[in-house]
Amino acid sequence: MESFSDGVIAVAITLLVLTISVPSIGPGETLVHALLKQWPRYAAYTVSFLTIGIIWINHHAMIGRLQTADYPILILNLLLLMSIAALPFATSLLATFLKEGHGQKTAAAVYSGALLVMSIAFTSLNSLILLRKSHMLKAELSAERRRQILIRNVAGLVPYAVATALAVVSPYVTLAICAAVAIFYALPIASGV
Amino acid sequence: MESFSDGVIAVAITLLVLTISVPSIGPGETLVHALLKQWPRYAAYTVSFLTIGIIWINHHAMIGRLQTADYPILILNLLLLMSIAALPFATSLLATFLKEGHGQKTAAAVYSGALLVMSIAFTSLNSLILLRKSHMLKAELSAERRRQILIRNVAGLVPYAVATALAVVSPYVTLAICAAVAIFYALPIASGV
Amino acid sequence: MESFSDGVIAVAITLLVLTISVPSIGPGETLVHALLKQWPRYAAYTVSFLTIGIIWINHHAMIGRLQTADYPILILNLLLLMSIAALPFATSLLATFLKEGHGQKTAAAVYSGALLVMSIAFTSLNSLILLRKSHMLKAELSAERRRQILIRNVAGLVPYAVATALAVVSPYVTLAICAAVAIFYALPIASGV
Amino acid sequence: MESFSDGVIAVAITLLVLTISVPSIGPGETLVHALLKQWPRYAAYTVSFLTIGIIWINHHAMIGRLQTADYPILILNLLLLMSIAALPFATSLLATFLKEGHGQKTAAAVYSGALLVMSIAFTSLNSLILLRKSHMLKAELSAERRRQILIRNVAGLVPYAVATALAVVSPYVTLAICAAVAIFYALPIASGV
Repeated sequence: MESFSDGVIAVAITLLVLTISVPSIGPGETLVHALLKQWPRYAAYTVSFLTIGIIWINHHAMIGRLQTADYPILILNLLLLMSIAALPFATSLLATFLKEGHGQKTAAAVYSGALLVMSIAFTSLNSLILLRKSHMLKAELSAERRRQILIRNVAGLVPYAVATALAVVSPYVTLAICAAVAIFYALPIASGV
Repeated sequence: MESFSDGVIAVAITLLVLTISVPSIGPGETLVHALLKQWPRYAAYTVSFLTIGIIWINHHAMIGRLQTADYPILILNLLLLMSIAALPFATSLLATFLKEGHGQKTAAAVYSGALLVMSIAFTSLNSLILLRKSHMLKAELSAERRRQILIRNVAGLVPYAVATALAVVSPYVTLAICAAVAIFYALPIASGV
Repeated sequence: MESFSDGVIAVAITLLVLTISVPSIGPGETLVHALLKQWPRYAAYTVSFLTIGIIWINHHAMIGRLQTADYPILILNLLLLMSIAALPFATSLLATFLKEGHGQKTAAAVYSGALLVMSIAFTSLNSLILLRKSHMLKAELSAERRRQILIRNVAGLVPYAVATALAVVSPYVTLAICAAVAIFYALPIASGV
Repeated sequence: MESFSDGVIAVAITLLVLTISVPSIGPGETLVHALLKQWPRYAAYTVSFLTIGIIWINHHAMIGRLQTADYPILILNLLLLMSIAALPFATSLLATFLKEGHGQKTAAAVYSGALLVMSIAFTSLNSLILLRKSHMLKAELSAERRRQILIRNVAGLVPYAVATALAVVSPYVTLAICAAVAIFYALPIASGV
């Protein structure tokens, strides 16, 4: 299960590069200008790459705790992978519409909504493992430690829910929140959260 | 053999996301509307993702029973992988034509036909392993248990054959049957089937 | 080295599906007709998939003989992987031009030429391992057995050289030879060749 | 961490083939001519493939020295993977604009700049491991040996910095330098550098 999950996540994270297309130069425009103009593509690429990367680190830790996996765990893991594998689409959608007059708020809501769905799938799988399948863990975890992990997971949902709600205000705020979450979890302090 | 198969299946399942393209907005249309209009893309993505995921789970169990693999097993496994790797095409075909006036029945028949071919390849490989290569299994399986597994495999072909035949009636019925199969196998009860 | 090579080969073989595009229907045409018309795409996909799959089986056997790998082996393996990773391009080229009035012979020559280059890279790597790095093998191989393996490798080059030369006669002959090679190596008898 | 990194690098190196598109034939043009005209695509593919391949060999050696990995190592490795996964874009950009009247210098600067960023990420990760996390190494390395490795890493940055600076002179010089670096590191002598 781990090598398959690693494979799907590795392919999804690398397919993100398709978000960044080679620009065509308009009349009277330089390539520098054309490249700078598509900054939403680089921003969306970076935020999605870091987010999937951090999900992988956490997924690795989650699966590493398991001695074995039963059918419900495999199926819930599959749903989690489906939400991760859909992110290249959500990323391209945001990158395409962020600066457009029409559709920018919808695109931002879909993007942070997709991250929210992924986080919910992750939290559900971790809850299943820690609350109902704890006999499958390699080492026993205290109830205290398990609660701590899950609270941290649930806390991770809040910013995405807020970002999705704020898409009606501004798609830039939505992207900024998603970026802040990725940067926060990339800081050394986050490893001990 | 297992890591290579896992790799091919992981890439194929992740490439499915290319089925979902970023829509262009028509005049007087909102992005919400444009996104909703392409619901066949999300439906085809979801059904194919779950189906390939469940094939992976079963493939993993099948290969896990083997101690070693000889040449006929490798080649038949390669044919199975070829049928799985072709699914992103069949999925895009269905997603593109499901709502079109022309070609929708053909596309649906190709889609469920592709799933049928994949199931036949899977059943053939499992038959080869369980009936003629049983000396290569890690643990001996009773004739009863082997028959049980194969009957279950053959039973899995029936809905896809029916779905393909019913494409001439309605492509929606075809898709619904394929979706029902995926959901059925994703239920906890299916692990014990 | 093995897991990286497996990964590259698995991605390359699965990317072949991009060769098969969803057709657009011309006026007065049915989808069935449009799908049948692009049969070169299915043919090229199948031949390339089988060929890469068989190369993987042989690559796996070649690497499996090695206890360790030094720098020249790693670099030559990298060149082999580069030739395999380029096959999705050669496959699409053949699929696009096989039925065209212009360019069909060139496309066929490039296709079988690409398979020839891949076979030369494979044979070179195997020669390096068996002739000059035999102290790195897990088990000693008799000079007789090593010669046998290499003769078989060199013999495998001949049909691709012939197919490339015959592209000026007919691209269909070229494709037929490449297909015959793939089918021959997929037969059980080939495992003992 | 190793299998995930291997996966990302394997996908990125194989996605490079998307740089080489099937050409369309202009009026009065043969396919041979159309294929030759897009030589920047083959050149950029080859240089990028070799460069990523060599980075993989070095990455493998770097990770192989580690007994375990802590959070800062995982995050810095993620940033390195992000710079590698972006190379298919930089490669396509260079391949598209190398022969164009406009934008060719910009494209060359972005290309070698992307290789420079990747090298800086690699050197940073290696510095972190060798200077601050040396207690996580499998076998102790002498201070002398560690300095030697890092000097070699830093020396590897220089040609890319020069190539980026020289893009304003000629994009061909930039590509030639990047090619020379790849070929130099592919020579047997480079394994002992």
